[in-house]
Amino acid sequence: MSQDWRKLVEEKHSRQQATIPKDWLLKHPLPKGQLDVTKFPDTCGILSSREVEITNTDVDVLLKNLAIGSWSAVEVTNAFSKRAIVHTSLYVTNCLTEIFIGRALTRAAALDEHLRKTGTVVGPLHGYVSWIGKFAEKNSVLVDILESLGAVLYVKTNVPQTLMWPETFNNVFGRTSNPHNLTLTSGGSSGGEGALIALRGSPLGVGSDIGGSIRIPASFCGLYGLKPSCGRIPYAGCVNTMEGQESVLSVLGPLCNSLSGVKSFIQGVVGGKPWLKDPVVIKKPWNEEEYKLVDHGHGTTLCFGILWDDGMVVPHPPIIRGLETTKRALIAAGHKVIDWKPFKHAEMYRVLGEIWSAGAAEDYRVTASATGEPVIHSMVPQSDSSLESEAPFRPATDGVTAYQSWQLHKARRDLRQEYLNYWEDTINVTGTGRPVDAIISPIAAYTAVPHGTNKSANYTMVWNLLDYTALTIPVAKVDPTLDGKRPPHKFHNKIDRANYECYDDPSTYKDAPISVQLVGRTLEEEAVIAMSEIVDAALKKPSARL
Amino acid sequence: MSQDWRKLVEEKHSRQQATIPKDWLLKHPLPKGQLDVTKFPDTCGILSSREVEITNTDVDVLLKNLAIGSWSAVEVTNAFSKRAIVHTSLYVTNCLTEIFIGRALTRAAALDEHLRKTGTVVGPLHGYVSWIGKFAEKNSVLVDILESLGAVLYVKTNVPQTLMWPETFNNVFGRTSNPHNLTLTSGGSSGGEGALIALRGSPLGVGSDIGGSIRIPASFCGLYGLKPSCGRIPYAGCVNTMEGQESVLSVLGPLCNSLSGVKSFIQGVVGGKPWLKDPVVIKKPWNEEEYKLVDHGHGTTLCFGILWDDGMVVPHPPIIRGLETTKRALIAAGHKVIDWKPFKHAEMYRVLGEIWSAGAAEDYRVTASATGEPVIHSMVPQSDSSLESEAPFRPATDGVTAYQSWQLHKARRDLRQEYLNYWEDTINVTGTGRPVDAIISPIAAYTAVPHGTNKSANYTMVWNLLDYTALTIPVAKVDPTLDGKRPPHKFHNKIDRANYECYDDPSTYKDAPISVQLVGRTLEEEAVIAMSEIVDAALKKPSARL
Repeated sequence: MSQDWRKLVEEKHSRQQATIPKDWLLKHPLPKGQLDVTKFPDTCGILSSREVEITNTDVDVLLKNLAIGSWSAVEVTNAFSKRAIVHTSLYVTNCLTEIFIGRALTRAAALDEHLRKTGTVVGPLHGYVSWIGKFAEKNSVLVDILESLGAVLYVKTNVPQTLMWPETFNNVFGRTSNPHNLTLTSGGSSGGEGALIALRGSPLGVGSDIGGSIRIPASFCGLYGLKPSCGRIPYAGCVNTMEGQESVLSVLGPLCNSLSGVKSFIQGVVGGKPWLKDPVVIKKPWNEEEYKLVDHGHGTTLCFGILWDDGMVVPHPPIIRGLETTKRALIAAGHKVIDWKPFKHAEMYRVLGEIWSAGAAEDYRVTASATGEPVIHSMVPQSDSSLESEAPFRPATDGVTAYQSWQLHKARRDLRQEYLNYWEDTINVTGTGRPVDAIISPIAAYTAVPHGTNKSANYTMVWNLLDYTALTIPVAKVDPTLDGKRPPHKFHNKIDRANYECYDDPSTYKDAPISVQLVGRTLEEEAVIAMSEIVDAALKKPSARL
Repeated sequence: MSQDWRKLVEEKHSRQQATIPKDWLLKHPLPKGQLDVTKFPDTCGILSSREVEITNTDVDVLLKNLAIGSWSAVEVTNAFSKRAIVHTSLYVTNCLTEIFIGRALTRAAALDEHLRKTGTVVGPLHGYVSWIGKFAEKNSVLVDILESLGAVLYVKTNVPQTLMWPETFNNVFGRTSNPHNLTLTSGGSSGGEGALIALRGSPLGVGSDIGGSIRIPASFCGLYGLKPSCGRIPYAGCVNTMEGQESVLSVLGPLCNSLSGVKSFIQGVVGGKPWLKDPVVIKKPWNEEEYKLVDHGHGTTLCFGILWDDGMVVPHPPIIRGLETTKRALIAAGHKVIDWKPFKHAEMYRVLGEIWSAGAAEDYRVTASATGEPVIHSMVPQSDSSLESEAPFRPATDGVTAYQSWQLHKARRDLRQEYLNYWEDTINVTGTGRPVDAIISPIAAYTAVPHGTNKSANYTMVWNLLDYTALTIPVAKVDPTLDGKRPPHKFHNKIDRANYECYDDPSTYKDAPISVQLVGRTLEEEAVIAMSEIVDAALKKPSARL
């Protein structure tokens, strides 16, 4: 059996190589010692200056230029394809898997023809170059809707073997690195996507998030990434591990260089009436009232709760600086900020782990046994992959009965109820006449970490358990002079101590993006996007910078 | 152990008897041979003529009279309490469990005082006498909301031992009979509620429905009963069996003598912003656009699909007459009617049964073992309660693993997807430019049946699996001269044959209500109510009658 899967991998590599245009290959290796490669595509000489300009353009301007015909869909598709492949995929960050540029260019040409003949765009994403991952042969509902809006699909990106792991490494394509610092992980599970977009090899992409898999790579790569609530974005027709696990659902959402792209994506997809195509989607069109923050005092004076420490792992200095910067910016913009005390976060983290463990081991066993491929137990480079103790994202048990899983659901339901009451009760302390409008939380207790060392997802998983909407916002990058080591605090536990000790040398994390996530209530996508725009604008004012 | 539970039952009976005002007890027994007791309360002499008038008034008029002060909340509460207790509860249909009239009258007096002082009602359900069942010591979210709207609670009603059974019999309170024909079951699980409202011992009540438990008693008792989609009406704080089973959720909904009551209930409850009190509720206020049928051509020319036979059990002659009457009425009112061919109904019925069986046996065992109470395996009067072969609603297996239950979820998800596509495809045959607007379906293959013989829920469970909204509409009552036995058809299976043979003597079913259910899409409560109003109005035109 074991020869089987190795042969399959080899064949896959050959097929992938065959899809790459030879004159897009790099002539020279990457300069030795260069770890931040985000700007490398601009200067390597393979992209024309116009291609550099196109690929550095944000989504809103890109769509406008496509709509008025300044740029054709074909040249935009070609520019992003070139940038994606030449630099980012195989030789530097290793973020691509399937490549289908031919199909993409044919589609782009059809869009150009439509615009030429009718003078109108096919849809709001006309000519939009977007990656959609992890899908089966038949198009998923989301792909159908995106294509109907005018999107052009051209590549797929790398993910960890079983998903459900906040780094990106597998037996087929290997490891994806962080373009801001190649010694660090790009995060996971949508880590290939995060790396590709950070390199501007794509203006926007889609990831899936069951415990942080959109938000972790988005934050590690310095992007905006939205994890919607369950039932907002269609999942039908997608494949994933642990299918049929419906206690806490995986959701799809966008990763993007700009907030305008996140908004265009959500507005476009729900505008496609996905509830007529996917029975799990809730019939809720884009709600402009909610986007105008009618339920949040029209956004005039918002009150944010900042989560400084979840009681499990104290964040590293750069994360604290990110929160402090955000707090200062919000106060300067006229908003209120209070401390958000964690409520049963450790219990939520434990319950969600047990919900997954209920059947995950059997799921992985059944899937892997088809080819004999070994299940990966560590992502540490050159490590013994059978080392069980390094497998924080492997199931804790061999499985439980359905009745036992019902008891876990009860525990989860009670936690959701208590957290809702806890949030509602903040009406007494905000001074706005409303409960806290949104929570500002770390995405992890750290920025991107060295390969193989991302061992917890406690700052993201709790919001999945609660089914809250969450959006990552980039704040800054690690600067070892600003983000010095701090004296030890009273450790919550062994993991907290180990995490503190990881930050012994701040220069390890140089240039890693620092982000926060804005957390809103269930199905509050419109309000979360609007409040994130407020936070983002506040952060972009020069006064917000130290 | 076995003495334990019998003693608990005895004590419960004593406590119940102590709550009944002695001068409300019937002086004379029910006339021998009288099976239809629905009008009996009007003439028994214990209710005053004003109390008879109040209890025979529909919800909309009742609320108006309460709001303008023509009737006080105290006298309305007193009238319904009297009617509920004297006749219906213990001596005839046996539908009541907990009785708390004292508390109800205190509450009613406070409402009257409020109206007198302020000139305004407390809320849209001011003085509304309503039962809410199956709740724990602490108020559920729904009870809190109903009370805030002005509702008065005064009794709880009977249910089957484990719920999940379409008849009403348990070891504590015994059996509930159908007030239209005492030899027949009132259905279940909300069978006490159905009987009470049919006797006008309450204007409106709440039941729970995971496989038909609102719709079956509503139809057997001749009432309107709405099963909403999951997430519309708050369930938090309620107790039930099989808690934590979240694959197909139980939902709460109203049973009522009129459609106006159903609408007032839903509009009132969602107006109470239940999503701020129950984390499972979807943030969706009452949508007047959807009630005006904007998505259904404004209701001008609707197209209904009629399900005549689900391919498992062919309905009895009265049910067919109910469908034919509805079809005729709709065509006369200018609407379109096409045949709805069943799509994988047998498979849906099987999958849902397996989803419940995944952990139900263990759930029942754990619950019953607390007192040693035996689990009921048959509802046939005087039967051997351990007779396994008569236990159609007992779990088919002893339980499965969580991983196996995930495979059932996948099967269910695929069925939902296929059914959605199937429904959407009807756009090609309706001639309205839209898919079928709603399905008209039997609620069971029969009207109310003799006690102990309701053995299937195939016409209700499929809509739970699909999470579609469904509302029962009364059409007529069984008339043995109109509903004669028909020649045998080609039987689908053994159950179908057995069901045919049950209708050997039509007079068995004399006066049993005949109903249909109107089935709409997920979360279409507003549209389903509006379309049911159209169907109901069409049925009430004299031309619709034979």
